[in-house]
Amino acid sequence: MNSFTDKGNHAPKENFTGTVWVNLNIGKDDDYNTIIGTVTFEPKARTNWHTHTTGQILFVVEGMGYYQEKGKPIQIIQKGDVIKIPKNIVHWHGASHNSLMRHIAIVPESDKDKTEWLLPVNDEEYNSFKASDIR
Amino acid sequence: MNSFTDKGNHAPKENFTGTVWVNLNIGKDDDYNTIIGTVTFEPKARTNWHTHTTGQILFVVEGMGYYQEKGKPIQIIQKGDVIKIPKNIVHWHGASHNSLMRHIAIVPESDKDKTEWLLPVNDEEYNSFKASDIR
Repeated sequence: MNSFTDKGNHAPKENFTGTVWVNLNIGKDDDYNTIIGTVTFEPKARTNWHTHTTGQILFVVEGMGYYQEKGKPIQIIQKGDVIKIPKNIVHWHGASHNSLMRHIAIVPESDKDKTEWLLPVNDEEYNSFKASDIR
Repeated sequence: MNSFTDKGNHAPKENFTGTVWVNLNIGKDDDYNTIIGTVTFEPKARTNWHTHTTGQILFVVEGMGYYQEKGKPIQIIQKGDVIKIPKNIVHWHGASHNSLMRHIAIVPESDKDKTEWLLPVNDEEYNSFKASDIR
């Protein structure tokens, strides 16, 4: 059996910056009304800004990364953290400057979810994390 | 922030055999219509036989354990495995004889789920796993 932490396939380039891998663990055909994938971000890689109508839950299983909601500062997220992304909030997540980050991403009520992909997180936004805080 | 792999609280004795810990990561108040907990089974500990009307998904994050559906042989489950428990199937899960096992357990559509707890997995059933196969 494969491991859920296997890298899987390249994420679609239009919604991500840098090298990102997606391993789809639970898909539509599994008929659980939830979609679950394990996503691996290489250092500096990140999602575009986006929203989920039903929210999303992240379990960080490896490394260190960043999570940011629009209008708030970047937060560090790391192995062991559970991130509760509110419904309809513009946000992004990705690896930190120097470490990969891998999370399980859970979309609840996937039949109702609409994920809206927005602009890439540009370097100025990504680098707004204070370098002195980078571990 | 706590880690989702922290042990949490003792699981209710009436539904488990042995020492089992539950860390509730996503509860009803989180309003995602999914319940997610990380469960740690010490060696030989296990759930009772039980069913879920909406099924359940397990991500094994540590150690080695067993999973069995009624009428089928015990399967080994280990770190990296994703277990797709079908709806309404009588089953149990737990640690192996010599290793703890920790999994994330995801209940999809928790508003519709009814979990029915049945009899404990007795020693004869638990020991039906062939010792020669135990790693």
